Amino acid sequence: MNKQIAEFLGTFTLVLFGCGAAVIAGDDIGLTGISFAFGLALIGMAYGIGSVSGCHINPAVSLGMVAAGRMSVGEAITYIVAQVAGAVAAAAVLLMIASGKADYTVAANGLGQNGWGAGYQAEYGMMAAFVFELVATFLFMVVILGATSAGAPAQLAGLAIGLALVAIHLVGIKVTGVSVNPARSIGPALFAGSAAVGQLWLFIVAPILGAAAAGVLFRSGMLTAPE
Amino acid sequence: MNKQIAEFLGTFTLVLFGCGAAVIAGDDIGLTGISFAFGLALIGMAYGIGSVSGCHINPAVSLGMVAAGRMSVGEAITYIVAQVAGAVAAAAVLLMIASGKADYTVAANGLGQNGWGAGYQAEYGMMAAFVFELVATFLFMVVILGATSAGAPAQLAGLAIGLALVAIHLVGIKVTGVSVNPARSIGPALFAGSAAVGQLWLFIVAPILGAAAAGVLFRSGMLTAPE
Amino acid sequence: MNKQIAEFLGTFTLVLFGCGAAVIAGDDIGLTGISFAFGLALIGMAYGIGSVSGCHINPAVSLGMVAAGRMSVGEAITYIVAQVAGAVAAAAVLLMIASGKADYTVAANGLGQNGWGAGYQAEYGMMAAFVFELVATFLFMVVILGATSAGAPAQLAGLAIGLALVAIHLVGIKVTGVSVNPARSIGPALFAGSAAVGQLWLFIVAPILGAAAAGVLFRSGMLTAPE
Amino acid sequence: MNKQIAEFLGTFTLVLFGCGAAVIAGDDIGLTGISFAFGLALIGMAYGIGSVSGCHINPAVSLGMVAAGRMSVGEAITYIVAQVAGAVAAAAVLLMIASGKADYTVAANGLGQNGWGAGYQAEYGMMAAFVFELVATFLFMVVILGATSAGAPAQLAGLAIGLALVAIHLVGIKVTGVSVNPARSIGPALFAGSAAVGQLWLFIVAPILGAAAAGVLFRSGMLTAPE
Repeated sequence: MNKQIAEFLGTFTLVLFGCGAAVIAGDDIGLTGISFAFGLALIGMAYGIGSVSGCHINPAVSLGMVAAGRMSVGEAITYIVAQVAGAVAAAAVLLMIASGKADYTVAANGLGQNGWGAGYQAEYGMMAAFVFELVATFLFMVVILGATSAGAPAQLAGLAIGLALVAIHLVGIKVTGVSVNPARSIGPALFAGSAAVGQLWLFIVAPILGAAAAGVLFRSGMLTAPE
Repeated sequence: MNKQIAEFLGTFTLVLFGCGAAVIAGDDIGLTGISFAFGLALIGMAYGIGSVSGCHINPAVSLGMVAAGRMSVGEAITYIVAQVAGAVAAAAVLLMIASGKADYTVAANGLGQNGWGAGYQAEYGMMAAFVFELVATFLFMVVILGATSAGAPAQLAGLAIGLALVAIHLVGIKVTGVSVNPARSIGPALFAGSAAVGQLWLFIVAPILGAAAAGVLFRSGMLTAPE
Repeated sequence: MNKQIAEFLGTFTLVLFGCGAAVIAGDDIGLTGISFAFGLALIGMAYGIGSVSGCHINPAVSLGMVAAGRMSVGEAITYIVAQVAGAVAAAAVLLMIASGKADYTVAANGLGQNGWGAGYQAEYGMMAAFVFELVATFLFMVVILGATSAGAPAQLAGLAIGLALVAIHLVGIKVTGVSVNPARSIGPALFAGSAAVGQLWLFIVAPILGAAAAGVLFRSGMLTAPE
Repeated sequence: MNKQIAEFLGTFTLVLFGCGAAVIAGDDIGLTGISFAFGLALIGMAYGIGSVSGCHINPAVSLGMVAAGRMSVGEAITYIVAQVAGAVAAAAVLLMIASGKADYTVAANGLGQNGWGAGYQAEYGMMAAFVFELVATFLFMVVILGATSAGAPAQLAGLAIGLALVAIHLVGIKVTGVSVNPARSIGPALFAGSAAVGQLWLFIVAPILGAAAAGVLFRSGMLTAPE
């Protein structure tokens, strides 16, 4: 159970700090601050729980690890359950904290949910949202698989992965709010209302396809370091 | 005495640079800049004094170490005395520097003190403040204990811990100004007036409870890496 | 082919995330956010593909490696082809995503292309642009060659190089948009119209001269660490 | 001569990127962006030239090393000459680039020079300026000496030192523009006019006193890690 406890706590932290920064402080820290909150929360947990579970804290990453042949399907399922539970718990705690401000309502301020189209961020269309999530998660998974490969300096992997996540958020918050992580999308959506739930499919499908593609690429040996 | 001198200097630096950034430059650098000032000051000291004292520079961390079974109560007390002394000294030096600007007064500009409720930051309520400080310190201590565990790359611990502190500040400055550290709260409060002193109890109780909970969790073996 | 695939993906990521941050989110994240997007994308890939190809993702860097005597001309050419192809592909994908916003046109919003003179950023002159690109690429290449030298801690090289790229962007976006990388300039320019294409020569010549000068300096032994 | 060439290039980079960010982009990137430009330039060079010269790129640091008993006076003098020459050369190149913008004049825009009092930044008084520079350089030197001590992870020293420099700038740009480095102050002042030159003494005396105090503290063994 230690691995699953670690994944629960790690995803909890990612969602509480990342979405929390957007909901509580977004009008001051802007997209730059929100981007760092997501990436630096991941870095903290990469070193805090990495030696226990590997700190996937993202169902797409766990499935990408399966695609790369580095994880069994059975263990991935236990990880994903823990990750989604952690994200939902974090969204609940965030809602509790955010409600401590008199003028806060989910309807008006959101809970850091992902989305696209009319009324969401810069109102990008669904196709742009899908392409962004697919490509960004593919590249994110390339960083994750490469940085944890035999030839790479393992100690630095968590830092590189978290900083890559900052870069992805700098680009994409205006497009989708940035998921690249189905658990991070599911948690807030459950509390944010039917619009967010109705768009959840994209933030499950696109990240998983992107991460799986990266897993297959690594499994093929086409991105393996020379001996 | 070397350890206590190190803890004094480390806490001094955290408070002078963190609270100093808020008081002196906050209207330009915003909450993002303030968040980095706190976290990067911690990183500097993690490597500057870490090999001497472990760079707790936070009474909640020292007590969390006691709860985790990694430190004796007696030594923790000497650490805490040094930490609080360092924070008070830093607040005094910050007051001296800030007073070098003609229109500065503590009443109008504050000294980086923590708080909640009417007139403080975004005016979050006490319950939100307590939950935030409790949960954030718990997660912060998970990062600290995990990143300094046997299985983790010890060299990177200071970096991961400091960057996690940046993320915590990005989320929480609007709620409480972010303590997660009783010494950091005590120093400025002593000079900031009765309102800050009257709210100090929360920034002592909640961080210590959160850090102790993380310590107990690690002691239980539930977040131990597999052999 | 693994090395060339890695260089393609790495340059793709640098351009998609760097230029993408400028095009999609620039009016919120400002030059600071854009600077971090470029540098942190490089850090992600330095650890993601570094053990495969060395993560040059920049023709000037590959040619600087040739000048330093660390790479053959033949291999450098295969790297450069992959880098330019990756940058062009990234610009195409960025165009596809950016077009998902109703009011986006290349003419009005650009595609992150480099430039100088009337109508470009702060309207610096050509001489300033050339000097900046030449000097910045020279110093960037000094960091790259030094950080990957025998005496330096190799594991940290990718981090130092990426953070140096952040600093370069903080200084120079107002001058040229910052190239220091011909591939990064070519990709967006091909879609951005004749003005950008007409100024491409500077972003090919100046970075290559700067990087080659650094390569020669290292080859001379004048920046070699003592035995 | 390799060490002196390295110190020249390193100080050149620090001043060109740090002061350059302020002069060229300061009105967009704010004090946060400027702070990162200084600190990340230092990190780049710490790994780029650190194995050659140790990357002091700061006369106060070299003299602090003398005070700590880690460097001879004779070698320190050769370092300081190279550092000041690098800073002056960087200021000249920065002036050349900045002049490429039609409305730039040193009188109106400055060259990143340090200062205090009427007309400078937030108009802090001389005493505040002196205390800030003295205390900040002392703490900066504690980080430098501690992070490069026997017990600390040497590979991370450059990163910790550079990030500490970011924190120092976040606090202090409004007070003095932040020197903590006489060479960084001398370079721009020579081109910035008599006011800056007339205030140079403080940015030579205070940083050297602060760094020397830290050197003495370490030499005394009071901040030495337990065996």
